[in-house]
Amino acid sequence: MSSVRRVSHEFLKRQGLTTVFGNPGSNELPFLADLPEGFRYVLGLHEGAVVGMADGYAQATGRPVLVNLHAASGSGNAMGALTNAVASRTPLVVVAGQQVRPAVGPEANLANVDAPALMKPLVGWAAEPACAEDVPRALAQAVFEAGLQRRPTYLSVPYDDWAVEVDDNCLAVLDRRVERASVPDGEQGRRLAERVAAAERPALVLGGDIDSAGLFDCAVRLAERLGGPVWAAPSLFRLPFPNRHPLFRGVLPAGIAPICAALEGHDLVLVLGAPVFRYHEYLPGRYLPEGTRLIQVTEDASAAARAPMGEALVADPRAVIELLLEQLGTLTAPTGPYRPVPEPPTAEGPLLHPEEVFAALRDEMPEDTAYVVESTSTNSSWWRQMDLRRPGSYYFPAAGGLGFGLPGAVGVALAQPDRPVVGVIGDGSANYGITALWTAAQHRVPLTIVLLRNGTYGALRWFGDLLGVPDAPGMDIPGLDFTRIAEGYGVSARQVGDAEELRAVLAERPDKPRLVQVDTALTTPS
Amino acid sequence: MSSVRRVSHEFLKRQGLTTVFGNPGSNELPFLADLPEGFRYVLGLHEGAVVGMADGYAQATGRPVLVNLHAASGSGNAMGALTNAVASRTPLVVVAGQQVRPAVGPEANLANVDAPALMKPLVGWAAEPACAEDVPRALAQAVFEAGLQRRPTYLSVPYDDWAVEVDDNCLAVLDRRVERASVPDGEQGRRLAERVAAAERPALVLGGDIDSAGLFDCAVRLAERLGGPVWAAPSLFRLPFPNRHPLFRGVLPAGIAPICAALEGHDLVLVLGAPVFRYHEYLPGRYLPEGTRLIQVTEDASAAARAPMGEALVADPRAVIELLLEQLGTLTAPTGPYRPVPEPPTAEGPLLHPEEVFAALRDEMPEDTAYVVESTSTNSSWWRQMDLRRPGSYYFPAAGGLGFGLPGAVGVALAQPDRPVVGVIGDGSANYGITALWTAAQHRVPLTIVLLRNGTYGALRWFGDLLGVPDAPGMDIPGLDFTRIAEGYGVSARQVGDAEELRAVLAERPDKPRLVQVDTALTTPS
Repeated sequence: MSSVRRVSHEFLKRQGLTTVFGNPGSNELPFLADLPEGFRYVLGLHEGAVVGMADGYAQATGRPVLVNLHAASGSGNAMGALTNAVASRTPLVVVAGQQVRPAVGPEANLANVDAPALMKPLVGWAAEPACAEDVPRALAQAVFEAGLQRRPTYLSVPYDDWAVEVDDNCLAVLDRRVERASVPDGEQGRRLAERVAAAERPALVLGGDIDSAGLFDCAVRLAERLGGPVWAAPSLFRLPFPNRHPLFRGVLPAGIAPICAALEGHDLVLVLGAPVFRYHEYLPGRYLPEGTRLIQVTEDASAAARAPMGEALVADPRAVIELLLEQLGTLTAPTGPYRPVPEPPTAEGPLLHPEEVFAALRDEMPEDTAYVVESTSTNSSWWRQMDLRRPGSYYFPAAGGLGFGLPGAVGVALAQPDRPVVGVIGDGSANYGITALWTAAQHRVPLTIVLLRNGTYGALRWFGDLLGVPDAPGMDIPGLDFTRIAEGYGVSARQVGDAEELRAVLAERPDKPRLVQVDTALTTPS
Repeated sequence: MSSVRRVSHEFLKRQGLTTVFGNPGSNELPFLADLPEGFRYVLGLHEGAVVGMADGYAQATGRPVLVNLHAASGSGNAMGALTNAVASRTPLVVVAGQQVRPAVGPEANLANVDAPALMKPLVGWAAEPACAEDVPRALAQAVFEAGLQRRPTYLSVPYDDWAVEVDDNCLAVLDRRVERASVPDGEQGRRLAERVAAAERPALVLGGDIDSAGLFDCAVRLAERLGGPVWAAPSLFRLPFPNRHPLFRGVLPAGIAPICAALEGHDLVLVLGAPVFRYHEYLPGRYLPEGTRLIQVTEDASAAARAPMGEALVADPRAVIELLLEQLGTLTAPTGPYRPVPEPPTAEGPLLHPEEVFAALRDEMPEDTAYVVESTSTNSSWWRQMDLRRPGSYYFPAAGGLGFGLPGAVGVALAQPDRPVVGVIGDGSANYGITALWTAAQHRVPLTIVLLRNGTYGALRWFGDLLGVPDAPGMDIPGLDFTRIAEGYGVSARQVGDAEELRAVLAERPDKPRLVQVDTALTTPS
């Protein structure tokens, strides 16, 4: 005989879900009791920060991660952050505490009445087991569904369930293993390879999933074999290709008409690991140029089904890249040198131009630095200056939901203690996940936050001009000093005045987190 | 001809929803364009803080309040805060921006696919109109449903709708008026009065709705007429009765067995404006003593339907109190003097006992001060020291969801500029709504935040002991300095060292917000 708690802990251990990101309430305590040797609990002070940290950690490790949240209020606090995890296809397994079973129906305080319904619109799978004995199996389902769907899942467990004794049948869950096969069959593979080989001017569009799946280097081999231009998919959350590679043409603009214009002249567009397409600005037009065919390869069945045009193959992009290289051969034409970086412009007065900041990062930080970026108004400056050649170099909130950046950087840094990590965070963005600074301080994560302060919601100003709404209220955010806020959360911080000082600071290698605040000129996302 | 935007703005103006609490994204800009004269936009830096501020503002004004949020990520960030608004029955009208109509299905970035489904588990009514022309009517429905149900509602509007021209039929909405009658009929009233008159030892249990509905003083008249003891309902979010009144017996404990014990000896328990009951700790037992009958009067039909025992009348408590006073007569027996306050205990070393802090508040702050409290581990100390005799003196997160306190205090202070407002906030709680400090600074709200710092999740420690789980991880929160954080958000702050210094600081009347940090000894909620 064993308890629900013990079997569940053992299952999590066998599956490697031993790092728990959480913020506890009373309902969660019985699950957290007697956590076995080897478990690590990472406390966040707000559930949005908890999920952002877990998302960064899961993305950087490429593995499902356990999140422990409180009932309706706590889970509710996390729902904005979960939208990013949904869009980045991050397999977070959220286990939430529920009131004791007799207290749920009468809506006792801290009961989450119909907890699965609350979360189902967002997560891939949500349940509250109908009895205690079903908890270990349901936990396994939550883990497997998260992995199969690459989407967060949610399990609500009444807190009196954890101590219930279970019979040996429950132990069967410990040996379970669930995986998906998604290699194209011979006919599918041949047809695709023929289509690609027959293309006269093929183009590649790579999505964030390419980097998530560890295909950054494979994608380079494929691109160099095809010899055509490569774009990153619009609304990008991971960099799938070296951004100064001679074949790279940048991130596609996020509008229908501009994408059509960018793809002009190609008879075949092969989209790997991305929706078709994640537009943002509504700039109507033809989806594709006359005569251009599009083939999408993705593991995301919904992204394939909902796309407004093109053919789609729901398959593992790795298998598809491998079969293309095999069937096309790997002979590669010379592609020329990497594109040089331009001289950054300077700004007026005491402000730095964001390009100066990014040039300093590029020059002073090690080449293998991972960047978590949530500074939306400086997007174009970023890509002009950076030179990112390694997998896992770039993370961005995948749903565009602010609040991922700062916590995400903490999560990436926790996952990769041997790799430098920098969070590039705007003064608007920082407020949505600010408490993650505390977790960074407590864990002495050697993380650098570069806080770009321009006193306004810069991307919103740009969008307001685009829509002809320059006068909306709520655009300016003066009077914020993140050096003070960081110190309050235990993170050492400084304001830097010019590019030289910034470069000197970035060249240091502290063994704990720090925040560097820079006042920057307002720029536009594109 | 007029536009959807113009008709909607005019409707909101006529209904008095001219203060907008919001955090904008691109989808929201077209709604916020050309806001007419008389509208005020209160910017929050995080959607949880936005809803908390709006909740406090709506509770303090007693009126529906407009909230403007971004699509899935922004609305998601607000869902934890909404759980409190649901439990306090606060009529928040949330209007959220949606992507343009053609971009929703394909899941463009910042589209909220099936937005009503995301919010429906929490709110009382949620919709996205099927066409632009239906937006003004649907907005009216959102306002009326919020008022009728006393629950937040949610309207998702594609941003291309606002500029659409509408015909004169749409103007009909401007003259609409919807209200509910909820006075008992003659027979219902007589039966209730007879039951109460026949009771030999009646007891009153008053819920937070009594204060929300402006019935604090009426409740005193009824209690003094009945002459029996008065309790506040468990898990209290508003104080419905003067807490040192000779008939007041305190807040009922939130467990089944302790409530039964407290009500021992009463033949009739009349519950006004509360669920029966909002238990928290699971301490099973008989619901009521042998021979005790319970009658619940509430406007909340769900609270009546879901209660596990007793009779219920779904009616306006005001009407019921008035008819009882009329039918019983208002002759009142003398009740004796208000209960005196005890001497506060002191703590060891440099720490203050929470009772010392509350005694200082009681003595140094004006009698009409409104308190917004989110310091859960000091609950019993609070009630031992405070002397609250006015309506609207006490607000607490109604769902127990942390993050209401600090923003709620800002909202109450914005609603009542002529009344002193104090936020009593724990160091755990403060992190869930910390950015509201910035809004307080920007609006120069004369608000005092008393930050009680004990370095731990105190209520959770207590609960862990109750459950036999003293060893759970994630209980301690060292290394937080809220004076620095407050300064970073533009709020002046200081640490006070002893009770005398605290009293001197509280006696000041600054014209802008301030934070006073006090290190306190760990106490338990009860």
